[in-house]
Amino acid sequence: MSLDPAKRGWMSDAPNYIEPIALGYEVRISVLGRVVKSNIPDFAVGDIAMTMGAWEQYTTVPGATLNKLDEGLGIPLSLFLGVLGPTGVTAYFGLLDVAQPQPGETVLVSAAAGAVGSVVGQIAKMQGCRVVGMAGTDDKCQWLTGELGFDAAINYKTCGDYEAAIRETCPDGVDVYFDNVGGEILDAALACLNQHARVAVCGWISTYNDSELPALTNLWQLVAQSVTIRGFVVLDFLDRFPEAIAQLAEWVMAGKIKYREEIVDGLDNVLPTFLRLFEGSNSGKLVLRIPE
Amino acid sequence: MSLDPAKRGWMSDAPNYIEPIALGYEVRISVLGRVVKSNIPDFAVGDIAMTMGAWEQYTTVPGATLNKLDEGLGIPLSLFLGVLGPTGVTAYFGLLDVAQPQPGETVLVSAAAGAVGSVVGQIAKMQGCRVVGMAGTDDKCQWLTGELGFDAAINYKTCGDYEAAIRETCPDGVDVYFDNVGGEILDAALACLNQHARVAVCGWISTYNDSELPALTNLWQLVAQSVTIRGFVVLDFLDRFPEAIAQLAEWVMAGKIKYREEIVDGLDNVLPTFLRLFEGSNSGKLVLRIPE
Repeated sequence: MSLDPAKRGWMSDAPNYIEPIALGYEVRISVLGRVVKSNIPDFAVGDIAMTMGAWEQYTTVPGATLNKLDEGLGIPLSLFLGVLGPTGVTAYFGLLDVAQPQPGETVLVSAAAGAVGSVVGQIAKMQGCRVVGMAGTDDKCQWLTGELGFDAAINYKTCGDYEAAIRETCPDGVDVYFDNVGGEILDAALACLNQHARVAVCGWISTYNDSELPALTNLWQLVAQSVTIRGFVVLDFLDRFPEAIAQLAEWVMAGKIKYREEIVDGLDNVLPTFLRLFEGSNSGKLVLRIPE
Repeated sequence: MSLDPAKRGWMSDAPNYIEPIALGYEVRISVLGRVVKSNIPDFAVGDIAMTMGAWEQYTTVPGATLNKLDEGLGIPLSLFLGVLGPTGVTAYFGLLDVAQPQPGETVLVSAAAGAVGSVVGQIAKMQGCRVVGMAGTDDKCQWLTGELGFDAAINYKTCGDYEAAIRETCPDGVDVYFDNVGGEILDAALACLNQHARVAVCGWISTYNDSELPALTNLWQLVAQSVTIRGFVVLDFLDRFPEAIAQLAEWVMAGKIKYREEIVDGLDNVLPTFLRLFEGSNSGKLVLRIPE
């Protein structure tokens, strides 16, 4: 099963893009599993499929919600939960369609070592951009610049003044900010935007456990620099998923997109593992495996 | 001379889209005047022209910054400071290019009886939209619905809960919010946005005299509803001004765009008159006339 910060947003009674997870109900989440019983001819016992499941050992779902996956592709199936699944597709559309970076522009990415951010940065490099990532450990920063080709990385836990760190690593200003975190880092990024910059808001993980959003002191840059801030969810692009998955698969197989995946075993571990997303102690895609 | 809230934003050392008005310097402002002395052949004494002038009786400017106006057009020349000038052009591009309303959509406009908002609402009606305006007196609200064709108006000073008032007058939600005020009204509007709504940020008059921006509690709607918030300044569209002015002139002459203009006499009145913009005691375009 895929562990995504977005699910924290669903655990709320605030208006949202999807039905909230109500108290007392199962936590809905993307799962990849093997069919153990089927009442329909399209799926046989043993087939592998993806669906919206839950934090549970067995899930019963309507056949129409299942996507069958082919074990013979030579691709580790867990990638369909990450770089070839919801998070990779989020990165693809969020960068290319929402933020629309142009060659030579500077792209800043927060949570850059995460499942979405790491793919965003690598696609931005392929677009001919200067790419700067923010992450929370030196190891993650080293991965970004040493292996993924980021031009610079900021350890936001040790850099001190966010705005100064962004200005230093983005000497020509920021044309695209791909925001996964919100809060003070968003505010600092706003201060460094160039005219006609675009901010793609994918998520605000730094704020999900707060009852109030922090005030953004630099929001006037929206007018002062004619900035566009656009929120999106990957479901906006549902009819174009096949395009994104095909392109991402080509890049992954060609080694142009690298990924990290951390697989944790055991349903008993789901809650502490999920909470690691909010500490930032994961790197890349976090997946929970339930032994048969 | 044109009295515009935007100039308050220029009186600040915060980063902005234009050189700030430094302490001890004249207040720059759009003026329309008669040439009293000329050292260049293109302009003769008596010609009428527009330029960036200042709060002063006489302004000396380079000839290249002057736009000559023709007194024989049958159009009151002061309109070139308002509905056919910067504020009308701001409304035109801010609505049509930035917010892009579609027929049948609901457009909410704040400061709707102002020089920009009143034009925004009338253009939105011509686009086939349902249009709701927010203004600060019953007289202004009556003007919006009775004369300008707005579908509904909210007196934000007496309505109580902004969000409830918006929901009541926009029963199908808000697809476009044209924001002239910021602050709590922006926050309430965010809560009422439909999926894929657009917010055009023209200015935040409610906040210009505050040292801190209020926290926006509903900013998550950006992601929850895949909203685009876009700040702009009219200078973004400088090369298309003639298109806008020609279209606005046609609408004004055909009676399709109505306007209010308040002309106050005397340079001594400039400061108290300017401050009226922030009380909302003006209606439509506020112009200062300096007797010869």
